[in-house]
Amino acid sequence: MTLETTVATIRPADEPAMAAARELQARLTKPAGSLGDLEPLSVRLAGLAGACPPPLPEPAAVAVFAGDHGVHAQGVSPWPQEVTAQMVANFLAGGAVVNAFARQAGASVTVVDVGVATPLPDGTGLIGANVRRGTRDMTVEPALTRDEARAAVEVGVQIAEQLISDGAKCLLTGDMGIANTTPAAALIAVFTGSPAAVTTGRGTGIDDATHAHKIAVIEAALALHSPAADDPLGVLAAVGGLEHAALAGFILGAAAHRVPVIVDGVIAASGALAAAAFAPDAIAAMVAGHRSAEPGATVALAHLGLTPLLDLGMRLGEGSGAVLALPVVAAAVRVLHEVATFDSAGVSEK
Amino acid sequence: MTLETTVATIRPADEPAMAAARELQARLTKPAGSLGDLEPLSVRLAGLAGACPPPLPEPAAVAVFAGDHGVHAQGVSPWPQEVTAQMVANFLAGGAVVNAFARQAGASVTVVDVGVATPLPDGTGLIGANVRRGTRDMTVEPALTRDEARAAVEVGVQIAEQLISDGAKCLLTGDMGIANTTPAAALIAVFTGSPAAVTTGRGTGIDDATHAHKIAVIEAALALHSPAADDPLGVLAAVGGLEHAALAGFILGAAAHRVPVIVDGVIAASGALAAAAFAPDAIAAMVAGHRSAEPGATVALAHLGLTPLLDLGMRLGEGSGAVLALPVVAAAVRVLHEVATFDSAGVSEK
Repeated sequence: MTLETTVATIRPADEPAMAAARELQARLTKPAGSLGDLEPLSVRLAGLAGACPPPLPEPAAVAVFAGDHGVHAQGVSPWPQEVTAQMVANFLAGGAVVNAFARQAGASVTVVDVGVATPLPDGTGLIGANVRRGTRDMTVEPALTRDEARAAVEVGVQIAEQLISDGAKCLLTGDMGIANTTPAAALIAVFTGSPAAVTTGRGTGIDDATHAHKIAVIEAALALHSPAADDPLGVLAAVGGLEHAALAGFILGAAAHRVPVIVDGVIAASGALAAAAFAPDAIAAMVAGHRSAEPGATVALAHLGLTPLLDLGMRLGEGSGAVLALPVVAAAVRVLHEVATFDSAGVSEK
Repeated sequence: MTLETTVATIRPADEPAMAAARELQARLTKPAGSLGDLEPLSVRLAGLAGACPPPLPEPAAVAVFAGDHGVHAQGVSPWPQEVTAQMVANFLAGGAVVNAFARQAGASVTVVDVGVATPLPDGTGLIGANVRRGTRDMTVEPALTRDEARAAVEVGVQIAEQLISDGAKCLLTGDMGIANTTPAAALIAVFTGSPAAVTTGRGTGIDDATHAHKIAVIEAALALHSPAADDPLGVLAAVGGLEHAALAGFILGAAAHRVPVIVDGVIAASGALAAAAFAPDAIAAMVAGHRSAEPGATVALAHLGLTPLLDLGMRLGEGSGAVLALPVVAAAVRVLHEVATFDSAGVSEK
C-alpha cells in the first residue's frame, strides 16, 4: 500500500473487544489486578484485534532495517561506518544478539537494506530495498528528499505487509546503522518538542566531549531546517534516517493490518513518533518492548503514552529489546486464552 | 540429602568462570555493556556453573508448594482457606496462570502438597508430601515445631533433587497458600531486621483496615516468639509456613547442585532469606525473577543483593513472575553460547 492508503486504513481500537477483555480478566482465577501491567496490555491487544481473546502473537517476525548516515562525518560515533554493513553480514549469518534472542523466542529475523552506504552481496537472504546509499549530512543539507523519505516509509509498509501475509501475528522492530542515534535524537526532539540535550544519549558509548558535540550537531541541524512536527515526511527528510523512515512505515503497516508491533529502543521509538504523527491511531498497535538506556527513548514513549515492559538497562538496538519482550506479550495474551474462570474451575471468590 | 548435608555441599561462585564470562562478553559483537543487566547475570550463572558458557537453563521446572496457615483465623485474608485446595486442583488441571505461563515458556509444573489443610485426591499428578495439615496460628503458639519445619525444608530439597535428576537445568519457585503473605512478611521482618509495617503488603488485595490489622497480627507474633535471625529453623518454626520452609529447601537444593533457581515473589523471597541464613553462598544460585508489588519482596531482594529482572506490578504468586523471567535468563545465557565475536564475524571495533 502507499503511505496515504496505509494511513487511511488505520482505525481506532475496538471498544467492545476491550470491554470484553476487561470483563474476562475479572473472572479468571487470580485476584483482580494481580497480573499488573499484563492486564491492560491484554486489553489493548484485544482492542487492536477487535476480538477477545486476541490472537496469540505467534509466529512473530523481526525486521532489521539497516542504513547509514551522512552525519557520521561529524564525528558523532566512535565506530567506523563500515560496521553497518559488517553487522548486516553478521545478522545474515545468525551471529548477532538479535539472532540469538530470536532463536530463543521462536521469532524469524528478516534483514532489510534500506540505506546501507556500501553495496551488499546478493544471495544471502538479505532483502535489497536500498533507497539511497546512506543519508546526506543533516548539518549541511536535508538528510533525504521528501521522495526518498516516502520511498523508505513505503519499504517499511511493504515489509510489514509481506511478513503479515506470510503468517506473522506479531511484528518486531529492528535496526542497524552506525550513528543512527543522532537522527533518532533529532526526530524525538522535533516530535516531542524537547531540547536536543534531553533527547540525546551516548549511543553505543561515547565520552562527555563527544556527547556534547553530538548535542551541538543535532541543535545545528534543527536550527538549519526548522522541521515542523505536523509534517512527518518533512521531518524525516530533514533530520531522519532511512531505517527510521522504514520503521515508521513498518509500524503503520502493522497498524493498518491490526497486528501488534513490539517497538524496540530509541531508533524504533523515533520511528514510532513519526508513525503517530502520520496516524495517531497507530499507537493502538504499538507495544513498548523495553526502556532503552538512551534517554530519548523514554521521552518518546512518554509522549506516546506507552509503558515499556522491560527495563534492563539495554542499549543495543537490532531489535534485541523487542524480542526479549515477546514472551511477555505472548504470556499476557495466553492468559485470556487458557486460564480457567472462578466458575469453570470451581474456585471460591473472596 | 538432609538439610545439614545440603548446606555443607553449597560452595561459593567460581571466580575463574566468572572472569572468563566477563572476558567473553567484551569480545562479542555488541558495544560493551549494551546488554545491561543481562551481562552481569550471565557472569553470575557462569560462576554458579563453574563453566563459561554455563548451561542453557532448559529444560526448566517450576515447583508449586502449597500450604495452609493457622493465622488465617485472624482475618488477614479476604479469601476462604478452601481456595488453597481449589487452586491446587486448578494447577493440576492446567488452568491457572502459572500453567499458561509455563506452557508459553516451555517449563514443566510440579505441584507439591507440603501443608494443605484438607486431604487432596490421589492420582492427579500431585506430589503428596504433607508435613502437617496447615500451620498453627502464630499469634497463639509457634506455627510449626522445629522438626516440622525441618521436614518441610527437606521436602523442598528432595523435590529440587528429583527435578534436577530428571534433567532440569533451571528451577523456578512457585507457591500457593491463602494467607501466606502474612508469614512471608513476618519472615522478612526477622531476617532483614525491618519493621512489620515495612514488610507487610496487601497480598491478594485487602483494604486499609485489614492491612493495619495484618501488621498488628505480625507484630504480635514477633513479640510473642522473638525469633533470632541466626537460627533460621527456629524462625521458620515460629512464624513461617510449610511452603515457605519448602521453598527455602528447594533453593538450597538447587544451590547444592549448582543449578540456578529463579525466585518468584514475596513468598519465595522470604524462603530465599531463610536459605541464605542457612547458607549465604546459596545466593549465588538465586535469580530474582521480578519485583513483586508486595513491599516485602523489595526489602528481601535488597537484603540479598539481588536485582529483579522484571518489574510489571505483578502480585499473583504461583511462580508466575519466575516463569515470566525464564526467557530473559535463557537469553542472557544464550548470548554466551551463540553470539559471534568481533574477530570471528570480521566486525571492526571502535
